[in-house]
Amino acid sequence: MKKIDLNCDMGESFGAYKLGMDDAVIPYISSANIACAWHAGDPSVMNHTVAIAVEHGVGVGAHPGYPDLLGFGRRNMDCTMEELRNYVIYQVGALQAFCSAHATRLQHVKPHGALYLTAVENEDVARAVAEAIVRVNPDLLYVALAGAKGELMTRIGQEVGLKVVYEAFPDRAYSAEGTLVSRRQPGAVIKDPRAVSERALRMVKEGAVIAVDGTAIPLDVQTLCVHGDNPKAVDLVRSIRETLEADGVAVTPMGKE
Amino acid sequence: MKKIDLNCDMGESFGAYKLGMDDAVIPYISSANIACAWHAGDPSVMNHTVAIAVEHGVGVGAHPGYPDLLGFGRRNMDCTMEELRNYVIYQVGALQAFCSAHATRLQHVKPHGALYLTAVENEDVARAVAEAIVRVNPDLLYVALAGAKGELMTRIGQEVGLKVVYEAFPDRAYSAEGTLVSRRQPGAVIKDPRAVSERALRMVKEGAVIAVDGTAIPLDVQTLCVHGDNPKAVDLVRSIRETLEADGVAVTPMGKE
Amino acid sequence: MKKIDLNCDMGESFGAYKLGMDDAVIPYISSANIACAWHAGDPSVMNHTVAIAVEHGVGVGAHPGYPDLLGFGRRNMDCTMEELRNYVIYQVGALQAFCSAHATRLQHVKPHGALYLTAVENEDVARAVAEAIVRVNPDLLYVALAGAKGELMTRIGQEVGLKVVYEAFPDRAYSAEGTLVSRRQPGAVIKDPRAVSERALRMVKEGAVIAVDGTAIPLDVQTLCVHGDNPKAVDLVRSIRETLEADGVAVTPMGKE
Amino acid sequence: MKKIDLNCDMGESFGAYKLGMDDAVIPYISSANIACAWHAGDPSVMNHTVAIAVEHGVGVGAHPGYPDLLGFGRRNMDCTMEELRNYVIYQVGALQAFCSAHATRLQHVKPHGALYLTAVENEDVARAVAEAIVRVNPDLLYVALAGAKGELMTRIGQEVGLKVVYEAFPDRAYSAEGTLVSRRQPGAVIKDPRAVSERALRMVKEGAVIAVDGTAIPLDVQTLCVHGDNPKAVDLVRSIRETLEADGVAVTPMGKE
Repeated sequence: MKKIDLNCDMGESFGAYKLGMDDAVIPYISSANIACAWHAGDPSVMNHTVAIAVEHGVGVGAHPGYPDLLGFGRRNMDCTMEELRNYVIYQVGALQAFCSAHATRLQHVKPHGALYLTAVENEDVARAVAEAIVRVNPDLLYVALAGAKGELMTRIGQEVGLKVVYEAFPDRAYSAEGTLVSRRQPGAVIKDPRAVSERALRMVKEGAVIAVDGTAIPLDVQTLCVHGDNPKAVDLVRSIRETLEADGVAVTPMGKE
Repeated sequence: MKKIDLNCDMGESFGAYKLGMDDAVIPYISSANIACAWHAGDPSVMNHTVAIAVEHGVGVGAHPGYPDLLGFGRRNMDCTMEELRNYVIYQVGALQAFCSAHATRLQHVKPHGALYLTAVENEDVARAVAEAIVRVNPDLLYVALAGAKGELMTRIGQEVGLKVVYEAFPDRAYSAEGTLVSRRQPGAVIKDPRAVSERALRMVKEGAVIAVDGTAIPLDVQTLCVHGDNPKAVDLVRSIRETLEADGVAVTPMGKE
Repeated sequence: MKKIDLNCDMGESFGAYKLGMDDAVIPYISSANIACAWHAGDPSVMNHTVAIAVEHGVGVGAHPGYPDLLGFGRRNMDCTMEELRNYVIYQVGALQAFCSAHATRLQHVKPHGALYLTAVENEDVARAVAEAIVRVNPDLLYVALAGAKGELMTRIGQEVGLKVVYEAFPDRAYSAEGTLVSRRQPGAVIKDPRAVSERALRMVKEGAVIAVDGTAIPLDVQTLCVHGDNPKAVDLVRSIRETLEADGVAVTPMGKE
Repeated sequence: MKKIDLNCDMGESFGAYKLGMDDAVIPYISSANIACAWHAGDPSVMNHTVAIAVEHGVGVGAHPGYPDLLGFGRRNMDCTMEELRNYVIYQVGALQAFCSAHATRLQHVKPHGALYLTAVENEDVARAVAEAIVRVNPDLLYVALAGAKGELMTRIGQEVGLKVVYEAFPDRAYSAEGTLVSRRQPGAVIKDPRAVSERALRMVKEGAVIAVDGTAIPLDVQTLCVHGDNPKAVDLVRSIRETLEADGVAVTPMGKE
């Protein structure tokens, strides 16, 4: 039986500020990337998010980012590799404590925003993040971009001794080279639920994605990134999950054997 | 053979800002209360401080505080108990990750500044801190004020299932009731190294302190709080340690059997 | 012709976090209390909010708060009076610069959340805020609670040389002593648009409010506090404005002659 | 009579953290670049620093930086130009309020750290900073790097309508092209007080600096950047000032006619 993980960024609310529809989307996903109070989130939000993840059998992941709440972790910051390593150790540890408090184990780490994008492109950053993870706990899974563009991040993760999990984006257009089409391009984000659900299904069942030029690109995928920002996004996730399950695909946390 | 722990606040530097003489004082202490980047400290400072603690066989403790870097955690903040609990879980977890990174275990938790002072006086705050600790790891030691004033904090710590460690201040004047004389009173802080060292020795060997009225107050003490803020403070710690060891007292981490 | 000011907290969004329906409510109000990036808001939000205020002929006010974004400025912090004074000077100045950038003048200052509530009760805090304002610009208006409870704040404001503007809350229940009924009491917040609009009208035309015991309490009012948190709140403000204008009351900024 | 300004970064302490010897160096300088509580400084430090500047007849300048206290404003951040403009407006306004509180006027703006370095190289950033300044107050002076490397920043400043003041570094080695030698090169920072003082004098009297290859480079200079980080730095500033005055050069704030 085929299986796949659906991961979603969660726990991005902060104090009086609410962001995302975590409680609505969590029944449909299998892994949560939880913000660690640097670029988003706060300790009470982390506590609540881990609680609902445990309640729904959802795997808990840390979603560390740059120290930039004002920029939501989306702006590059010119940190040293030692700083980055320590920032990630810190954030992963903070989330791990909430896992202990809820009698669960941290499953994975997926860097957030600018930190993710930089890790994809920059060997030093990919290594700093990977080294941080391995130092906290070498059993943690390292989520990396699937496809050609993700090879650097994957190689570094494996070099430091981590198990790497390949992630794809069913709602994003892919180039013929197997890379994500920039969000600035028209059509880069696919919004039709049926189209996205079918892409998700093809990724899982055929290990492939149809690129913008119509060719089928092979893509080894273990987790699909979905979003819970708004009611439409939640509907989309439900549609993806139903499509997958209707076709006999099991949706399970990436860390579950 | 008598033994005692010497604990010292450490890791209070932040970014470009240096505070404390951690590297100079660490050879003389046996436990470090390490700031967790809320009221002081940052991840790189935490990493360094845990590293030197491990190197010197010093027990590592978390020193969580209010989210108030601007006020150095010395100002009361009117948080809910749920917020406090989550703030402490967060900070303890963050430090624990650096312990993992340096292959050591977190030994204890001692709240910082206004959080400590409030925990001494306020049952709800004492409980919020204690509950946070027990949720992260029930084996962690909870440092509480020795003497009459510390009974509330001690009772709460024990109620939630923690092992409580009693702390005294050899450089502070005690009232006849066994409470600390307010810093605003003249003579509240004792500066003469010989006097402080002798007080430390009496605390350990006789389980007592001479109060301001000359009476000997019984005081059950397992750790003595010392400071490493400046060269004089470091000299004082060395003097305390030498005085203790010359009299056959072993200085060992509070968590060591 | 009778006139009144309608003031509303605005500019409380922060980075990726949206809060309040500023663009929807601004056509109906006459003064904006703009957050200054300490408890809420950020420089880009401040810039936008001042821009739309100018566009709608709305008076611009600073809404300084405690340095507590995590608690939205709603938690008391035990600051010294010197700290408070400097925090308010800082925030008022920051907003003033955006007024300069948009060729307008800062009209008033109204402390936010816990800072407002403390200023109402605590003479030192009321004075620290008032002194800060007068040091930046003695022509700024100081918004204080109308009625018996606001007398302390008013007296302090006048003592330091500020013009004080009395504020009432048409959607809040008043006790027979002319104080606000605590939000924890049932019925403390009135939600029926017609009831609230009528209370607003009575405040303006009769200088009175009907207390919870049915008696009419005299209340000298120059500005009414309204809210723009959600679509219902915006509807309520529109209803208040329409009711006032239908009865010949002019809604104008508090600082307009 | 020749005249020159000596500018120094000040007000970089934060809360419990002390940085720089502001009180010791201020008698020897004529302009202070005061941190605005983003990369360094806090409102109470700003208040004190403006007070001592006024007391010593020192011109007050704003020293805005990136929102990165943890990195002391030394790390590049990938902000939009609109964000940068608003960040600078905010910080300049905050300092201006302390000038009002001390009955003085803000004299100049000099960006700090990574913001300065980026403004030197990047036209958009130079323009964002300049536009921010002009929007707050077009009479403020814009401090820009003297020499070939500073031409971009200078041109932009003048284009938006600001008066630009050229700054040189007497303790830094210059290349034959008139640019600063990177700090990573040996000899980039000159430490001998006599050598630095003579370079300062030559800059002022001859409008030139001796480059690393021995050639004299023309350099139009109106302010010299000095430092007050430690006792040696303070001695160096005193030496520079005494050397200048002994040779008949008046040390006066950049904004003084």
